[in-house]
Amino acid sequence: MARWEPDARGRLQAAAMELFRARGYAATTVQEIAEHAGLTERTFFRHFTDKREVLFAGSEVLGQVVKTAIAGAPAAARPLDVLEGALAASSELFDARRDVAKVRSEVIMADPELRERELTKLMTLAKTMAEALEQRGVDASAAQLAAEVGLGLFRASFARWLVDPKARGFAEHVHASFAELRAISGRPAAKIQRS
Amino acid sequence: MARWEPDARGRLQAAAMELFRARGYAATTVQEIAEHAGLTERTFFRHFTDKREVLFAGSEVLGQVVKTAIAGAPAAARPLDVLEGALAASSELFDARRDVAKVRSEVIMADPELRERELTKLMTLAKTMAEALEQRGVDASAAQLAAEVGLGLFRASFARWLVDPKARGFAEHVHASFAELRAISGRPAAKIQRS
Repeated sequence: MARWEPDARGRLQAAAMELFRARGYAATTVQEIAEHAGLTERTFFRHFTDKREVLFAGSEVLGQVVKTAIAGAPAAARPLDVLEGALAASSELFDARRDVAKVRSEVIMADPELRERELTKLMTLAKTMAEALEQRGVDASAAQLAAEVGLGLFRASFARWLVDPKARGFAEHVHASFAELRAISGRPAAKIQRS
Repeated sequence: MARWEPDARGRLQAAAMELFRARGYAATTVQEIAEHAGLTERTFFRHFTDKREVLFAGSEVLGQVVKTAIAGAPAAARPLDVLEGALAASSELFDARRDVAKVRSEVIMADPELRERELTKLMTLAKTMAEALEQRGVDASAAQLAAEVGLGLFRASFARWLVDPKARGFAEHVHASFAELRAISGRPAAKIQRS
């Protein structure tokens, strides 16, 4: 077998998701995942440290994409607008893989240890956003508040994207969530008209 | 020894925090906590199922306070304003116990398993807020978004309250965080003036 396998990583992830869904996460072994993907265990371990990492490897990529997008936003952009753009920029990580994301969510929701790990990864994303805002000169306390709100909107957007019957892109849900926040956190319309 | 001990629960919590801080969470036993509080192990187990529950028993009380406050908010109040009032209403749970809260945070941050448990409890708070908003007639999707944002502001407020050199109350930090969100999520001032 050749050492280099075209998209071995993607094939291993797809195989893992199929087996997790069919047999459950706990009952699936690395050997079974490798076999199901038509690859060896050795190849598996070149890409992932264990079967749990198959579920969470994407979190680091997401963090990197968001961090890069925050750093590259226009200098004058305000913190929440920066986060909106950065989260929307992660859309390409999600849109092609909605079915995988659904299975992944189901697998994680069914296992308390995986649920807790998922939450830890999400908090790491909030920290990444806060630090990237600070790098732009935003005060630490303001950056943390914006990042916490950004994480909340990420979670709300993701939940809507996952079950959207119209299958709209993740970016569209991100923009809609931020727009909804602006609408619900503004002063009541009557007051604005009176001023 | 009398079966009824005045504020046994509070004494056990204070004793546990002192020992967790001095010796570490893992190295502290229930027997030591009970002895340090001048109580018996049997009394400990009348109040807590295990030593971990000493750290997390307050989460349920917080959830109840927030849920009740959301249900009791004026009918016309908008979702984020309802959450602001409800989180501010939890201030009395926090303000008298800032020192305990600090130790608790340090203990939790030092242990991955406790950190993950804390995050799970926070997500339960978000769910409680979303469900309580739905009970008021808010659409499920809008309720989830408001609750996610509310949780983010709760976390930001809590972080600021915990280290506030002026020791302002938790409610004050909640109101300041919501005001800050309104300020950063509004349209830029220039645009509003032009309209």
